[in-house]
Amino acid sequence: MSDLKNKILSLVKNDLEEIEAALRQNLNPYLDLVHNIASHILFSGGKRLRPLLMVLSARMCGYDGDYDKTFSTIFEYLHAATLLHDDLVDEANLRRGKPVANLVWDNPTAVLAGDFLLARSLSIAAKTKRPDVIEVVAGITENMSQGEIHQLSRKGHLDLTEEEYMEIIQRKTAVLFQGACHTGALVADASEEKGTQLAAYGFNMGIAFQMVDDLLDYTLDTKVLGKEIGADLKEGKLTLPVIYSLKTADQKDRTRMEQIILNKDFSAEDFEILIAKMNKYGGQAYTKKLATEYVSAAKVAIRTFNPSKTKDILLMLADYTLAREA
Amino acid sequence: MSDLKNKILSLVKNDLEEIEAALRQNLNPYLDLVHNIASHILFSGGKRLRPLLMVLSARMCGYDGDYDKTFSTIFEYLHAATLLHDDLVDEANLRRGKPVANLVWDNPTAVLAGDFLLARSLSIAAKTKRPDVIEVVAGITENMSQGEIHQLSRKGHLDLTEEEYMEIIQRKTAVLFQGACHTGALVADASEEKGTQLAAYGFNMGIAFQMVDDLLDYTLDTKVLGKEIGADLKEGKLTLPVIYSLKTADQKDRTRMEQIILNKDFSAEDFEILIAKMNKYGGQAYTKKLATEYVSAAKVAIRTFNPSKTKDILLMLADYTLAREA
Repeated sequence: MSDLKNKILSLVKNDLEEIEAALRQNLNPYLDLVHNIASHILFSGGKRLRPLLMVLSARMCGYDGDYDKTFSTIFEYLHAATLLHDDLVDEANLRRGKPVANLVWDNPTAVLAGDFLLARSLSIAAKTKRPDVIEVVAGITENMSQGEIHQLSRKGHLDLTEEEYMEIIQRKTAVLFQGACHTGALVADASEEKGTQLAAYGFNMGIAFQMVDDLLDYTLDTKVLGKEIGADLKEGKLTLPVIYSLKTADQKDRTRMEQIILNKDFSAEDFEILIAKMNKYGGQAYTKKLATEYVSAAKVAIRTFNPSKTKDILLMLADYTLAREA
Repeated sequence: MSDLKNKILSLVKNDLEEIEAALRQNLNPYLDLVHNIASHILFSGGKRLRPLLMVLSARMCGYDGDYDKTFSTIFEYLHAATLLHDDLVDEANLRRGKPVANLVWDNPTAVLAGDFLLARSLSIAAKTKRPDVIEVVAGITENMSQGEIHQLSRKGHLDLTEEEYMEIIQRKTAVLFQGACHTGALVADASEEKGTQLAAYGFNMGIAFQMVDDLLDYTLDTKVLGKEIGADLKEGKLTLPVIYSLKTADQKDRTRMEQIILNKDFSAEDFEILIAKMNKYGGQAYTKKLATEYVSAAKVAIRTFNPSKTKDILLMLADYTLAREA
């Protein structure tokens, strides 16, 4: 584990424990089955990054109420709901090293459990009694579902552009980070300016987070990643490292790469060849560079906030987006 | 078409047209694909009963704003979202005489389009700027997903009780009717008493509506019903007419009925035998009797409202629940 990760974890230890408790307290289904499925996805080693971002954002805006941890569950429940539905979409087998819910149970049950988590998320949003928060949360869901459908509808299409990739990851990932930070400002009754700044922090960080996530698919092995290597590609999901490399490759190399990509049962050797070609054309380096720029933008966005321990943590979290190993 | 239906339709013609327009105006996806899937389910001859109930409830409480039709879309979008997810659950082929969305497109796309509609529904709820409305709408979704999971987890179980059946249909159907009527009262700033009464009207009517729906599965042919005959049973879904008949049948008849039910590929002859046995033990009559009682309860619930054209329509709608043919 990196030093940065250890440092952050020591600073947010209490917050994470309270978030964890809130996630258990607010789940509240009437069926044991729903509890079991929701728990399978919720309590399997998630980082709690999204709720943490809400809690820290609220604190940086001077929130002094008792409900920040409760409200923060909105963003983890929402995240878990989309994971349950995405696993169905992706036909993946593993999530965080565990079999996905739709294999442990079945597709319909996993979908309905996702619906329940989505509804829980919105019920808790309603408890804020703030229509602006609810609008943010409902808007996140609209964006995420459309981002996922967009990605799904372009599966296996080798002509996916960087612009389209950006559109997709904004909707499917960045708006959730953005909404979590924005909500923190809203529940703290912060000025609109502060809300906008924190929303921008979250949005840029979310973009960087997804880019690094997509990059990890081309760098790590199954044990560290908790999912199969080359999983994105096997699902026909073209991400920035590949998109960029295909665009910049010469005809011969592009053809070779396309052959590997289009063959969903590519071998480990094929995958290594692909990674080498991508390195040759700078796909990974380009993605890392862009992610670094978005992290900078995230940090700049909260520049005018007064120095504080909380601000330091938000800055460290932005840096950690780049440094993370899983 | 029955006289009652014609009379109601002539009285709510303008409302239905405005609801229809609002459903088109508020959909607003950024992807054509999402628009197409949502339209497939939304504009295929739905009765618009749920939005209509909201509009009429609001009017009976003196609502005079401009947004009743907009807000009413909440309940049709929510309904459509659950249909998209239920069709996946039910593995049915037809819905309102058309192939289901998850067959026209695929399961993941249908699930995500359902998520989008659910989110639209909550976005519009947020536009009411009323946390109480949002709490109602989010609560509906929690209940519906759990009701569906409950039903799913008990599929094919011959020991499903009437109590469990009631629990399931309350959650999966009645709370939506209840919430639509309740929301009408809330957006009209009605007294809590009026809100409670309209909610009770909707709840009881929803119960009756589902019971009649379950009854229709044992009375109509595919052309009228728009779905396959005996569909519930083929999905392993035991409903009140069957539950009651199994409970009251003698050993020999029960065994025969169970054989037919457990054989998912039962023939048309088998199905006729089953219906005859159910008639013998009064399953259909019992269901009809209970539905009639719930319709009475719905009407009693709004007894103290002043006489008005709107109240007349609500009373007629309750009666129509029993008279409907599809």
